[in-house]
Amino acid sequence: MKIKSGASSPTVPELDARVRRSKEAVLTVTHQMMSETGLSGVSIDEVSKRSGVAKTTIYRHWPSRADLLLEACSKLGGKTEAPDTGSFRGDIELLVKEFASRLRMAPAAKILPSIVDAAEHDAKIAKLLHAQVHAGIMAPLYEVIERARTKGEVSRDQNASHLIAHIAGPLVFRRWFSGEPLDETFIHAIVENAILAEQTVRRR
Amino acid sequence: MKIKSGASSPTVPELDARVRRSKEAVLTVTHQMMSETGLSGVSIDEVSKRSGVAKTTIYRHWPSRADLLLEACSKLGGKTEAPDTGSFRGDIELLVKEFASRLRMAPAAKILPSIVDAAEHDAKIAKLLHAQVHAGIMAPLYEVIERARTKGEVSRDQNASHLIAHIAGPLVFRRWFSGEPLDETFIHAIVENAILAEQTVRRR
Repeated sequence: MKIKSGASSPTVPELDARVRRSKEAVLTVTHQMMSETGLSGVSIDEVSKRSGVAKTTIYRHWPSRADLLLEACSKLGGKTEAPDTGSFRGDIELLVKEFASRLRMAPAAKILPSIVDAAEHDAKIAKLLHAQVHAGIMAPLYEVIERARTKGEVSRDQNASHLIAHIAGPLVFRRWFSGEPLDETFIHAIVENAILAEQTVRRR
Repeated sequence: MKIKSGASSPTVPELDARVRRSKEAVLTVTHQMMSETGLSGVSIDEVSKRSGVAKTTIYRHWPSRADLLLEACSKLGGKTEAPDTGSFRGDIELLVKEFASRLRMAPAAKILPSIVDAAEHDAKIAKLLHAQVHAGIMAPLYEVIERARTKGEVSRDQNASHLIAHIAGPLVFRRWFSGEPLDETFIHAIVENAILAEQTVRRR
């Protein structure tokens, strides 16, 4: 059966815009619910109710609740630009401050533990967490280290992934595990440690 | 009303032993369920079914599900003894290996993320996580650092909590966030970093 597009029917660009708007509304509500209750508290019923988007429409875009959660989670990382202050120390300092501030304030900091928890029981979510969320959030750190290497500020022998674990690890540890503050003294200690580690690799 | 203890009634020590056994059975099953599904998957119904302990008995020991979860979680930390190899480096090396192995294998490693997640939404669980679980697991590290200070192996200027975040943080970061392996090279890098950080504090 062929349907002729009449004057009162929406055009293709209008339809596209509508689809985009409803998808955005669903993702925004999903994010809100994730930060309120964690992943386990998100139900399609409630997302539909709050976003005003029909359940049938939601299921047309995301075949299952897991697919919606995966897409919502995939938007969590990778919004920080790699800084370029002119020095490795300056760049690291800015990034550690930025991460600390996001860990203290951003809704994502409340959501991530429920993704980490879900990853323990679901291989798809684990893959998304490691390959997409982690890689996205850490991308500016990798970029800053790579640039410093090209400029000769950081030794080629420095293992970028080890260095990053020593920069981001202590922040993550305090925010989610010990509950101690991400204060100025602590941020300073992390930056000093990163510079020190790099100098030692160089001296070997 | 007074009840005379007859020959067939259980004596007080027997009753105590029964109570202890049923509490242990409930806590064991709760642990199992926590590692299978995370905190959110634990229901009193299911705990009662699997442990064979009546719901009324469970509620007599733990007035609410939250109380049971709190006690089960509080048993997660603090089983590692502080080693005494004769040197700070040797002690740290043993502890990092021990932590890495527990993070790779122990059921607690599967449970902790759901406690971290729950702590985001529940102040009681947050307090338990920070003050009890974290403090219990990190106790041997604090003990080893304190002993090294007394012996003069570690400077009094070294901030123990900063040092611990640089030892445990990278492990936690890889295990729960980046998904990279806790391999020999990585463990070695963490130990070297800890020794280096200490030497630098000393040289200042």
